[in-house]
This record gives sequence, structure tokens and C-alpha cells, in this order.
Amino acid sequence: MLTKSDIEAARSRIAPYIRFTPVLDVVLATPTGLLPVTLKLENLQVTGSFKPRGAFNALLQIEGGHVVALSGGNHGLAVAHAAKVLGKQAVIFVPKSAAATKVEAMKLAGAEVRQLGDVPADVFQAAEAFVRETGWPMVHPYDQEPTLAGQGTIGLELLEQAPLVRRWLLAVGGGGFPAAAALAMAGEAEVIPIEPEGCPGLFEAQKAGHPVPTKAEGIARTSLGPPSLGQLPWEILKDRVGPSVLVSDDAILEAQRWLWREVRIVAEPGGAAALAALLSGAWTPDEAGPVGVVVCGGNADSLPV
Amino acid sequence: MLTKSDIEAARSRIAPYIRFTPVLDVVLATPTGLLPVTLKLENLQVTGSFKPRGAFNALLQIEGGHVVALSGGNHGLAVAHAAKVLGKQAVIFVPKSAAATKVEAMKLAGAEVRQLGDVPADVFQAAEAFVRETGWPMVHPYDQEPTLAGQGTIGLELLEQAPLVRRWLLAVGGGGFPAAAALAMAGEAEVIPIEPEGCPGLFEAQKAGHPVPTKAEGIARTSLGPPSLGQLPWEILKDRVGPSVLVSDDAILEAQRWLWREVRIVAEPGGAAALAALLSGAWTPDEAGPVGVVVCGGNADSLPV
Repeated sequence: MLTKSDIEAARSRIAPYIRFTPVLDVVLATPTGLLPVTLKLENLQVTGSFKPRGAFNALLQIEGGHVVALSGGNHGLAVAHAAKVLGKQAVIFVPKSAAATKVEAMKLAGAEVRQLGDVPADVFQAAEAFVRETGWPMVHPYDQEPTLAGQGTIGLELLEQAPLVRRWLLAVGGGGFPAAAALAMAGEAEVIPIEPEGCPGLFEAQKAGHPVPTKAEGIARTSLGPPSLGQLPWEILKDRVGPSVLVSDDAILEAQRWLWREVRIVAEPGGAAALAALLSGAWTPDEAGPVGVVVCGGNADSLPV
Repeated sequence: MLTKSDIEAARSRIAPYIRFTPVLDVVLATPTGLLPVTLKLENLQVTGSFKPRGAFNALLQIEGGHVVALSGGNHGLAVAHAAKVLGKQAVIFVPKSAAATKVEAMKLAGAEVRQLGDVPADVFQAAEAFVRETGWPMVHPYDQEPTLAGQGTIGLELLEQAPLVRRWLLAVGGGGFPAAAALAMAGEAEVIPIEPEGCPGLFEAQKAGHPVPTKAEGIARTSLGPPSLGQLPWEILKDRVGPSVLVSDDAILEAQRWLWREVRIVAEPGGAAALAALLSGAWTPDEAGPVGVVVCGGNADSLPV
């Protein structure tokens, strides 16, 4: 089972390869009044999302010269970049709905890209068949310990950069990122899990008592819509977070517009989902004290309008 | 004459109204090798540029209910925003070449906007005539002490946020921003002044020994192309900075592309000019040690391609 020590070890391992992304304090006008919010600008991370934290941690522990990844786009881009930096060859499976920005960047990094289907579920089978055929190792986007240990390093940074913030809103896709962050911050700060209405993997798992096949619809489906919540994330999340908070596509779009208009930050839909919960009032703090939001991805194809 | 105490007083005065913008360490591939660079992300400032530092400091010391500003866009937007927050009515004169993003934001803030001509020089006469007629105070973009005292506050932040950086590259327009920053950092860190080839106000002033009428051409003319370097900035700059470093429009465009591709930061041309000097090799550090770049504006109308 993943522990905080694994995350601390990952932090030292990946430090030379990733950015210590900044935080920024802003004031939000929410349905219930003005709210000071700390934004963690993980959209400024290498490759434009939090994913290289896990990718580097995984690849630095793989000996061979080849790696395979399946991804909605950001994890694949992170693996492609890490492979290039570490001198490995990457084959990345992504759905056709992946942002052009991400696919181009993967190719620029020298990866072989195979695009098929519309949502991440469509590429799982092909990627797994390819792994069986070649024997090359798969770097899983959310259901492998090295990935999670790397992704959890953001939790250690949040505690250092904003020690007064006790509640951090994070978007949930496969669940690895919020699970690992929650583990890293256990006893010190809480993760509030946010999901698009179209990709309710954690919401459904909480209802069923375990991960179940889940729809992947709406504007964030590429990055937040895996076939189901991961099993490993679920084991960590089930006792550590409250109910999943669902946000609409309209709320996500408005959060993207707000970030650009008010802060000149470009977030992709998945990267703006956590903020959407605050701006729309889907989640309202029930006690005083600062609140944080992780802007977890910025790989958009255009400015929001 | 402006002093560091004026800048320190301005900092307390404007603190409730502006953001303490973050810094981010990145690595640049320059013509002479890899270079670690600290970016000050002033594009994330309220209204998308450094200008509200000066605008709030000026408006907080004006008693009447009206203010006038002339601007290439960012200063006008900052004055419009500060006027709205402080309950004043603003009339802003801008050239037609100002980014649509900026003009729309001025109107959203409730300002009356008058657009004429192509470059800032074209609006000076109209704005001055309007001020003579109405008697309303003009908040000058770079040739007034309150504006400069506010803008210099960034220098105090740079010293705190990146104490090891001794050289900061800043873009020069009217010159108020680099002059005030240089004054704030005197004896501790140096300002390296960067200008587009099309807007060489400081370059020409250094040649003539005083500010002279200067062309305003190229992609950064709106924000960095005043009729001439300001007199007040010149008095501060002449003994405090080395020769102006000129960069081409192509280098500025490439810096905009680099910031988006590598860091997911949107900079307008004037906001990317300082970085362009490093990426193009127009300026090369002649000694070891960290270098800083201020990304001073992010009000672009689209992503760079």
C-alpha cells in the first residue's frame, strides 16, 4: 500500500525534472459572497499539467528502453516528455478527442502516437493488447503505485506553500491525483473531490461502495473520463474524502472564462473543474478559513470565449 | 525627486488592491547554452499587467470623482479598474491599435473609452485638450511620480522573492517601470533594459543624452511605443542602467510562442520583449549567476501560433 514515505521518496527522485509551480492568492465573487482563494498553478508545470510528477517517478524506475502509455492526452504527453528526457522510446495511445495541442506536443517529443476512439475507454483495449504483444512496460495513468507516488508530491508542496489552507479542491478523473494528494496531506489538510456531471467516477463508486463502469461525457471527458475510478485510488479515497461534488459543463466553461478574464490563466476544461465548484456554488465552505484550488491543466487549443 | 521611501509608502497604500504575483524558475535553451531563469509572472496581476501598481497609487491620492488617462491600453485598463474599485469615473484615451481584450475590459469596468489614431502619440493631444477643458486630473502612464512610485513596488517584491537574482531584464516603453524598479533595487540588483527595435526610446535618449521624439513601430508599438522616453524616467535611468538592448519583432514573437509552448503562459508582445533578449541571444550574461525576467503583460487577443 502506498505510504507518505513513498511520496517523499518520489519528490527527491523527480525534483530535477519538474517545476516547483507557484501559488497565487485571488478573491472570488461566489454566489454566497467574496471568498479569498489560493490557486496552485499546476497548469504551469512542465508539459502543462500535473502528470509529469507521476510519469517521471515511474520512468526513473524502469530499466528498459521502451514505455507504453494510454491517456486522455496529458498523461501521454508527460510520458512522452519524460521518455525523451530519459532517453527512452514511448508509444502513446490516445482518443481522437484529445486536444491537438497535446497530440502535437507528444509528437514533438518524439513519441509514436496512436489515436483511436472518442474517450479513454476506447484506447485501453488497444494499449493492453500492444503491451501483451511487445512486453514493454505500461505506465498507467492512475492505477499504479509509482504514478500515484509522483502525483502525490503536489500535496507536500501545498502544505509548504499555503500552510493555512486546510481544504483543497481537486478535480477527479481516474482518482490517482486526489488520492495521492490526500495521502500526502493526511491529518493536515483535506481534499474536496470535484467531478464533472458527465464523468462521475467517484460519485458512482461512493454510491456503489466500489468502482463501477462510468459514463464519460461532456467537455472534460478526455481528461476526467476514464472507464471507471481506479481501484488503487479508491482504496485511498474511500475513507479520506467526503462526497464527490458534481459540476456542470456550463460551470466549467464559466470557470475557464473567469480564469482567463480575471487572472490571465488558460485552463483546459479538466483544469478548471475544481474552480467551477466554487464559482457556481456547487460547493460552499461551511466554515471560515482559506480555501485552495488546484488548476491542474492548461493544455487548451484556444482562449475561452 | 522620487525616492525608495516613496516606493515603500506606495507598497503599503496599494497592497489591498493588487496581487503579490508569483515567480517561477524555468530553464531556457539560449544560443549560448542552457540558462536557469526566474520569471516574475506580472501578467497574472490584476488587469493583466503591472500597470495597476501605479494606477492605484495615483488614484488613492486623488480626491475628486473623475480621472483621465491616456494609454496604449494597459495603463488605461488599470486606471479604469482602479476608478471602478475606488468609486470614480474614468475617461480613457487609447489608440485604435489597442488590443480588443483591453478595450473591452475598460468598458466592462465602466470607463468611457475614446479611441483614435494608431499609436499612443496620437492620443496625447486629444487627452491633454480634454484635461484643459474639464480640469479633471490626468494620471500619466510614465511621467508622474505617483505612477512611478507604485510601479516601483515590483522591485521590492523581486528582491524578496528571488534574492539571488542580481540582474532583471525589463521591457522599456515610457521608461517609468524599469526606472522605478531600478530605484527600488538600487545597490542590490540591476535592471537590464530591453526595447523593441521599432520603439527605441531609451536607445535614442542614451545616444542623444536626453529623451528625443522616437518612432513607434512593430508588434509592440501599442504598449512600448510612447512619443519619447519620459523625462522623469530618464533622470532615474540615465545613471542606473547600461545600454538599451534592442530585440526584433521576430524575436518577440518567438518569445511569445516559447512562453505558451513551454510554460502555458500567455504574454502580449510587450510582455514577452524582455524574454526575447535572452532567447535570441541579443543579451547574454557575461558572468555566472541567476538571471530574472519580468513578464509584464498578458493581455493578448489570441494564443500565439
